[in-house]
Parts: sequence; C-alpha cells; structure tokens
Amino acid sequence: MRLAATTEELRREIASLPRPLVLVPTMGALHEGHLALVRRAREAAGAEGTVAMSIFVNPIQFDRPGDLAAYPQPLAEDLEKCEAGGVDLVFTPGAGSMYFPDRSITVTESLLSQHLCGATRPGHFDGVCTVVLKLFNLFQPDAAVFGEKDVQQLAILRRMVRDLDVPVEIIGYPTVREPDGLAMSSRNVRLAPEHRADAPRIRRALDGARSLLQFGERAAAPFLAAARKHLEDSPFLRIDYLELVDAETLQPVGQIKRPAVLATAVFYGDVRLIDHVTLLP
Amino acid sequence: MRLAATTEELRREIASLPRPLVLVPTMGALHEGHLALVRRAREAAGAEGTVAMSIFVNPIQFDRPGDLAAYPQPLAEDLEKCEAGGVDLVFTPGAGSMYFPDRSITVTESLLSQHLCGATRPGHFDGVCTVVLKLFNLFQPDAAVFGEKDVQQLAILRRMVRDLDVPVEIIGYPTVREPDGLAMSSRNVRLAPEHRADAPRIRRALDGARSLLQFGERAAAPFLAAARKHLEDSPFLRIDYLELVDAETLQPVGQIKRPAVLATAVFYGDVRLIDHVTLLP
Repeated sequence: MRLAATTEELRREIASLPRPLVLVPTMGALHEGHLALVRRAREAAGAEGTVAMSIFVNPIQFDRPGDLAAYPQPLAEDLEKCEAGGVDLVFTPGAGSMYFPDRSITVTESLLSQHLCGATRPGHFDGVCTVVLKLFNLFQPDAAVFGEKDVQQLAILRRMVRDLDVPVEIIGYPTVREPDGLAMSSRNVRLAPEHRADAPRIRRALDGARSLLQFGERAAAPFLAAARKHLEDSPFLRIDYLELVDAETLQPVGQIKRPAVLATAVFYGDVRLIDHVTLLP
Repeated sequence: MRLAATTEELRREIASLPRPLVLVPTMGALHEGHLALVRRAREAAGAEGTVAMSIFVNPIQFDRPGDLAAYPQPLAEDLEKCEAGGVDLVFTPGAGSMYFPDRSITVTESLLSQHLCGATRPGHFDGVCTVVLKLFNLFQPDAAVFGEKDVQQLAILRRMVRDLDVPVEIIGYPTVREPDGLAMSSRNVRLAPEHRADAPRIRRALDGARSLLQFGERAAAPFLAAARKHLEDSPFLRIDYLELVDAETLQPVGQIKRPAVLATAVFYGDVRLIDHVTLLP
C-alpha cells in the first residue's frame, strides 16, 4: 500500500499506478460502510487497476466548529483497515496542504442544496463540491464511489459532474447498516449508550412511513406525519428536518408521482445522524 | 483541421489527437491578438502536438443582455483564420450543448473579483471560471493560453487552477495592439468612427500616468489623477472604472510597494473597452 501526505507526493504516486484508478473519498473513521465502498471500487478497477482512498476531514464542509473538533480521526486504525481491505494508495493530507490561507475559489450548488441538509447546514455542500473537485483534479480517477446514505451529497456530486463536464464516473453504493438497522456512520461511536439504543428508531420511522405506499397513499402529508410521530416518541432525539422531496431535484413534493425521498436528520445530544428511504410511486 | 460542435464530438476528437494539447479558449470574432495566442500555443505544443481552439460566446459571463446580443459572431471567417493559423481542432458548441436548462453548479471567486471589472460586471468572473473549467474538463489540455489584456481574468484563472488543483498550465501572452496603440479587442469593430479615432487615448492615459514612476512617485493618487485627466479630456468616453490595484491580489493600494496594475474600463456609447499598465516599484 502506497501513502501520500501532500499533493506533490500524491501526483508522483498517481503517475506510476496502473489504470483504471477508482477513488473512494472519505473523512476517515472507517467502518464497514467504507469497506463496502472499497470492495465496490475494486470491482470497478479490476484486479490490475488501482483502488485509492483519500482520508481528509475537510474543514470547509463543517458548519459547526464543535462538530469538526469532535470528528473522530483514528488514522492508524484507518490505515490498517485500508491495508486489510486491499487499498493500493491512501492520501492523508493535512488541511494546510489542501487549502491556501487566501483561497478564494468555491464550487457552489444553488438548487439541489436548498432543502434537507443544505437548508440546515449553510455552506456544507459548497465545501463538499469544492473538496471533491479538488480530489478529482488531483487523482484524475476514472471513477469514484460514494455511499447512498448521503443521498443529497450523491445527487449534488452527480450534478457537479454533469454541469462541469467532469470526466469521472460517479458510482453510488447502498447504505450499509448495523444489525439493528441503524445506518453506519462515523458519528455513531459518539452516541451515548442510551442514545445508541434508541437510534434504530430512525430507520423504523422511515420504513414504517414507507409502508403507507402499500395502501395506495400518494399524498406527502401522511408519510411525514407517520414518520414524525415515531421519531417524536423518542425521549432523546430532536428532529433537525424531516422532508419528502423529489429524488432528482430534491425539491419538496406534495404528491408522490415520481421517485421521491423521505429523509431526516436528527440530533442525539450534539451528534447528528441522517437517514432516508426511497419512495417509488 | 478538425471540427467539433457538440461535447460528444469533442470527446471523440480529443481521444485521437496527439499530445501535448494546448487550448486557446476564445469567444470568436478573431483578430491578430487571438492569432498571436495561437502561435504561442503552437510553440508550447510543438510541431507534433495539438493546438485546439474553442469558439463560444458564453452567455453566463455577460452581465448586459445587449452586450451579448451585439457580440460579433463571424464564424465562417473565424474558421478560415483558424485554418490559416494552423489550428488542429476547433470546438464551436451552441449554448444548448454547453448548459442544461436546470444547471445549478457555478465556480465562484470571492477575492480577486471584488474590484475592476468584477465590481461593475456582477457575476462575470463566475461565468468565466465556470466555462473555462468546463472547457478544461472537456479538452483535458496540458496548457491553455490567455491574453494578458484581460488582466483580471488571467489572475482569477490562475487562482482557480491553484485553488482547485486543476492539472493545466496557464500561459499568459502580452496584449497585442493596433499601430496607434489601441488594445486589440473583438469589440473594436463596433466603435463609431469618431470613437475609434479617440480610443488610443486609453493607452496614452495609462502610459502617461506610468511615466510618473520615473520621477520617483509611489503614491497611488497622482497616477489615478493623471490618467483620469487624460481620459476625461475626451468628448466621447465615459469612465466605468479607473483603479490602481496590487498585481497579485487585485486589491486597491495607496502606495506602490509591490508590482501594481493601473487598469481602466471605459464606454464609448455602449461599447466597453478595457486596458491596463503594470507599475513596478
């Protein structure tokens, strides 16, 4: 496994590694979900190609300084997992090697970021787009793999690739879950025990609402009401948002006529978790 | 000479053309200044490499609809000039093949675009950055050549390449002038005869101000006053801006301690012309 800690080292490594190159961009604190992305990347790269991972806790996508400071960064363990997972190249830049103090260029998204996490985390997706475009320019990958758990991020990155003609294939991979249904997240380790025990409720609330489809329900309000009721039954969590949006435009819909997404973000203390289900009419 | 009118055609052509590939992005209405950029591109590409030109009047960088509508588009003549100038590939997309109606991604610049043209043309440089990044992603050039006449554009594009790690070398080329000193511009053909006759005053005003350096002057005010006086002596022109800025940050300076730029934009009727001189302390 090759390592690069600066953009200069990365460019040198990239020049010598076999193609196709498939990138898995992460913020580290790797869990089974990330390792599933690595396996998907290997499938796309083939045995002879290169699977690369970036581990970078991107400061410009954090809207809450406390969230950035608390974000777990177990680098030694992460590198062991990469090695065991068959990653060929890991890029672990410091913030100083990614951003100049006087940086002034930002990639912005103005439509798909209006709702969901975009509404409650100002600037978050501009930070995501900017760092991912930088990583694409640095790695020049043939493809990149992202988890579908971050459904809005994935839609926005597909939009970025489309609108800027970025020559990279975006591959989405289904959410990986704990046995009790909680979506895997690097933030799960920060949950207090009673919060961790309560958190599978998020998935149950969304799945329960989805079952209304079987009764022919297509109006948004009953789906939102059912999910909200189950979430609010928790003595611990606070809803950040709960929305039903079009799966492509991520704009709120009143009726489910095309694929839609029922998505939520909740806080347990200062730990914020997201999840969603897709609703097919 | 190869032609491509859509991004699909362009990608096919690019795949088969020899490297290095050097791009000259233009809005067409080609004059001697553009052809000088083509010669510089050939020097960078070598006899065996590829010189490519894009001709695209980019709608999202125009802040005045009338300016866009009036922008000259003599495509047949442009293609003849490309052929004669030894261009290997010309890309002439329609606006519909460059932008989706629901495009939502923009590359923005927040520091270098605060003054000069950025202050009087809102959104202009975001439109420039966005289209140039798209062209870079489509052509994947080794280098690209831009005229120094558009001094703020050149500084902002260099900043974009730096901040987004774009793997393209930016080559600047000095302003090409008419025999009477007027900077070549595709907009010059739209000047009324009496305005064309008066326009060399722009260069004289800037050059005259620069001569104050010889007397040891370093304060900004006398440079600005001297240039303004000569410009305002014209019975025709209206000053859009006249500013003295740092050559790297493009922020106004009160004293010339590092390389600076004295830059102006003026209107003759509805035709807007720009020019600048560099001041070295």
